[in-house]
Amino acid sequence: MDRIASLIERQPKGSALLQEFYSDPEIFRRDIDRIHLRHWLCVGHESRIPKKGDWFRFDLAEESIILVRGRDDEVRALVNVCRHRGSRVCYEESGNARMLVCPYHAWTYDLDGRLRSARRMGADFDASPHALPQIHLRILEGLIFVCFAENPPGLEDTKRMLRASLGRYGWSNARVAHRQTYTVDANWKLATENYQECYHCTPAHPEFSRWHATEKPDEEVAELRAAAAERARAMGIEIPYVADWPYGAPGQEMADSSYDATYPGSVTGSEDGQPVAPLMGDFSDYDGGFCYVDVGPSSFFLAYPDHGMVYLFIPRTAQRTDMEIVWLVRETAREGVDYERAKLTWLWDVTSVADKLIIDQNQQGVNSRYYRPGPYGPMESQTRSFSEWYLKELSAAPTS
Amino acid sequence: MDRIASLIERQPKGSALLQEFYSDPEIFRRDIDRIHLRHWLCVGHESRIPKKGDWFRFDLAEESIILVRGRDDEVRALVNVCRHRGSRVCYEESGNARMLVCPYHAWTYDLDGRLRSARRMGADFDASPHALPQIHLRILEGLIFVCFAENPPGLEDTKRMLRASLGRYGWSNARVAHRQTYTVDANWKLATENYQECYHCTPAHPEFSRWHATEKPDEEVAELRAAAAERARAMGIEIPYVADWPYGAPGQEMADSSYDATYPGSVTGSEDGQPVAPLMGDFSDYDGGFCYVDVGPSSFFLAYPDHGMVYLFIPRTAQRTDMEIVWLVRETAREGVDYERAKLTWLWDVTSVADKLIIDQNQQGVNSRYYRPGPYGPMESQTRSFSEWYLKELSAAPTS
Amino acid sequence: MDRIASLIERQPKGSALLQEFYSDPEIFRRDIDRIHLRHWLCVGHESRIPKKGDWFRFDLAEESIILVRGRDDEVRALVNVCRHRGSRVCYEESGNARMLVCPYHAWTYDLDGRLRSARRMGADFDASPHALPQIHLRILEGLIFVCFAENPPGLEDTKRMLRASLGRYGWSNARVAHRQTYTVDANWKLATENYQECYHCTPAHPEFSRWHATEKPDEEVAELRAAAAERARAMGIEIPYVADWPYGAPGQEMADSSYDATYPGSVTGSEDGQPVAPLMGDFSDYDGGFCYVDVGPSSFFLAYPDHGMVYLFIPRTAQRTDMEIVWLVRETAREGVDYERAKLTWLWDVTSVADKLIIDQNQQGVNSRYYRPGPYGPMESQTRSFSEWYLKELSAAPTS
Repeated sequence: MDRIASLIERQPKGSALLQEFYSDPEIFRRDIDRIHLRHWLCVGHESRIPKKGDWFRFDLAEESIILVRGRDDEVRALVNVCRHRGSRVCYEESGNARMLVCPYHAWTYDLDGRLRSARRMGADFDASPHALPQIHLRILEGLIFVCFAENPPGLEDTKRMLRASLGRYGWSNARVAHRQTYTVDANWKLATENYQECYHCTPAHPEFSRWHATEKPDEEVAELRAAAAERARAMGIEIPYVADWPYGAPGQEMADSSYDATYPGSVTGSEDGQPVAPLMGDFSDYDGGFCYVDVGPSSFFLAYPDHGMVYLFIPRTAQRTDMEIVWLVRETAREGVDYERAKLTWLWDVTSVADKLIIDQNQQGVNSRYYRPGPYGPMESQTRSFSEWYLKELSAAPTS
Repeated sequence: MDRIASLIERQPKGSALLQEFYSDPEIFRRDIDRIHLRHWLCVGHESRIPKKGDWFRFDLAEESIILVRGRDDEVRALVNVCRHRGSRVCYEESGNARMLVCPYHAWTYDLDGRLRSARRMGADFDASPHALPQIHLRILEGLIFVCFAENPPGLEDTKRMLRASLGRYGWSNARVAHRQTYTVDANWKLATENYQECYHCTPAHPEFSRWHATEKPDEEVAELRAAAAERARAMGIEIPYVADWPYGAPGQEMADSSYDATYPGSVTGSEDGQPVAPLMGDFSDYDGGFCYVDVGPSSFFLAYPDHGMVYLFIPRTAQRTDMEIVWLVRETAREGVDYERAKLTWLWDVTSVADKLIIDQNQQGVNSRYYRPGPYGPMESQTRSFSEWYLKELSAAPTS
Repeated sequence: MDRIASLIERQPKGSALLQEFYSDPEIFRRDIDRIHLRHWLCVGHESRIPKKGDWFRFDLAEESIILVRGRDDEVRALVNVCRHRGSRVCYEESGNARMLVCPYHAWTYDLDGRLRSARRMGADFDASPHALPQIHLRILEGLIFVCFAENPPGLEDTKRMLRASLGRYGWSNARVAHRQTYTVDANWKLATENYQECYHCTPAHPEFSRWHATEKPDEEVAELRAAAAERARAMGIEIPYVADWPYGAPGQEMADSSYDATYPGSVTGSEDGQPVAPLMGDFSDYDGGFCYVDVGPSSFFLAYPDHGMVYLFIPRTAQRTDMEIVWLVRETAREGVDYERAKLTWLWDVTSVADKLIIDQNQQGVNSRYYRPGPYGPMESQTRSFSEWYLKELSAAPTS
């Protein structure tokens, strides 16, 4: 039994993970191999690359991929590593290009990754085996998902679920209004666990807790949710409740969706609970509700009737993680006219800044010799599920 | 024989330590386990937390503790790691609180560490096993000492010795006038060895050497010391000479105290050798002497008739150490009236800045493949004793 | 077979090196032991220390040496590690001294490294075994070369070759006009490989490629070179072509020299291809050519008729390397009168800034799980030779 397997065996039930899972560079490397490179990851919204040749980079640990819209209008995910001597092909964060030219020796790739030309490599040189590797990519409700695995989990259930949830909020016709990255000095799982529970909301996020019923246990806000759901149904919208993450069907990517309510006097996630952008999708009015969706290990979504939030938790090193947070609005919404960026982004900026602080301090404490995993409480059931799923994945055979 | 044991065996007698002891992260981890977490460490002066609920943090390597004065006026040392999911409970450096509330999920601890309440953990939840661990704490002459070990070394001899030395200088009625941290990019033992010898004083510390006889070998300044001691005795004060560090009685913490003289024309440690604050303790006049006291592996004290110095050498990583330096004055002394902070702190600031430079450069050289431990000289006998003690502790069985 | 040996065996032929060779700290340590500490390294030009007692430091990985001109006018290379407790003896980058006094305890060394005095070490102390170690040093055409090995490779062939190449450009009567360090976040071999090929010049260095025929394959510029060589010969100058690096004779240090041409309309390496300093050495006119010389693993030279360039690639850590670049002019040239520093340095500053960018991005890509060593092209033959030589050295027995 290897060291990691024996750690998994020592993990106490129903408690936070053992220290090593949050701190050890060897475990971090296995996390990337077994979790991030095997599952579907959202990398952003399609609206970032509307035109042929538009591209942006997505980096994760030591990996980098290029999301590029081809001349055939297909979006592809190409590995950002030149096949010659390994340079990054795209240095910048985003751009538009007719071809992808490596700045080092000018090896030139088509937008589908094929090596189109390599200068002065001699008459015998065969370009065909030197394409940029392409990884799996699917676009669902405007969201770009990629998977590095050769045989990715199925996305059929996820597709259905996203259509029935984010689809009603019009995300396929949405547009990125703002993006911001918050770097936490902590393992990615501490960031993910934080996102998976709202037990911390009341003490740590007064701004959020002022309007979102999520801060309370389910049983205390059931009526509120039912009333909001009723208003939504009156508009013909019914957001399905899809199990608790991370229980996907066998062979399918994990995904869940749930519906929650804002407190009376508020209708969306903003400083004062009042609208910050035009209604989206099928919404003709505010229902006093909003929708959470989770897909795979590190892509989380939150849909209000007037705007959407994308949370991408991106591991960098064993104790550093970027939280990329994206604000979506209706495609036709004009900044300064239909919405003010500062008002749109206020709540989740203040909340993410607070999250950074508490996640950083969590890592500090976890690094202590005195750290002992404590019990997850009832409001942390989803975090507990995440931890259990994580350990199962980590011990699974390295099949892909 | 493990790797560290075989290194200990290869260590040449009477010389500086082998490179690995100063540079290796594995040895650093063992240092913390075998030295710092087993011995008594001074963490500061009681005057930092005069009121009930006052607290301050003390951090060391990955560990953090909270020094807090309870409602019963007792000072306790609590481990700063929440029993829930491991967050730091106190984020800030110091404060005053009625209870210690973890900012993450609001688990609330009494000032004695007991878990008083944990919100929404369910009816079955039993708070009693979830207290913040408390470590040993003793206050001697106003100095707070802590020990992480379950069975700490005895402090009886130390107590007696501190009473007879720092006690005469009135340290239990002193007050922190200034604190400053100097970060050295070096192993903690290079900082400690530096402090343990004054062989380097003449070349490296002209400001200090101008007034302190410590810069010369004992035999050259014996008369000067005798004359100062005579003046002290005339005031009824006799500072005991207690062996050379680190020779404690069996089962007792190591401690030593010695008495030294300032050169004629000076009476204290300042830029011009003239007084910088009101006389302290039992001193009714200047004796032309001062007193050194060392306790445990990393707490050092220096008492002048008019002010006191505390030196805490705090390991952070294998090659980074913080030197926290504290200036004490008589409790009733008023800044700007009875003393000027700039004049009070001048000498040991200039000396510590110089120490940082030489300790950093020592580490740089020690990291070289060409480094060979050279011989300790006669003026480095205490540094040599420290090194020998260190190796003995490192090879001792991990009993606590 | 150890881990490194098995990596060497897995290395594909004719391709860039496997990831580990560019990233692994253990391999980096072996690189220093087997490559840098065994071969001759240029550390700078003798004109930096014209007077007795002049010295400068040269640091490499964890090592530091002092290049010092003795009272006998000899230049020596002394290890910058005090024999007492291991401090650096020289803290600064350069200076002038009658003796080398360690700032820590004032152990005092003669300029030839002998320990002249150690204060207060007792009557029995014998200074003689405590000299600063001296490593091998040779000055060739004004360039200072050092070797840490006990038995360094022979330099006879190199000496002959440098005399016939840089000697004609008058480098022994040159002077350092400017030095600049460019830090790349990359393994030293990525920096060296970059320097060894001009396949990247056309895309990455338009400023350089505008005037230097090096950017084209040999066969396309043979005539141009022949014409330049003819003009040189008319002045009595014939730069030998000495094999491709790194093929030294058995037991001899590797070295090569080659001659190349500037494009018509230009005569030197500058923004506009026009002269930037007075002619040097035996040149009475511009030949439209210039000369490349390489010695050992990390010292590279480029001689134009009016100025010279020294490139020192200095490893710091597995993924950090300093490129120290030195501009030489005729000894008698006066800044502001005979040359302008900004014009002199323009081309190789802009080129080095660009190199930093591409080398950094190369390292980023090489760190990816998707990196696969790609084929070296015809214009990268020297880089290929370097890689093959490197692997051979790395697997050689640790004889010195």
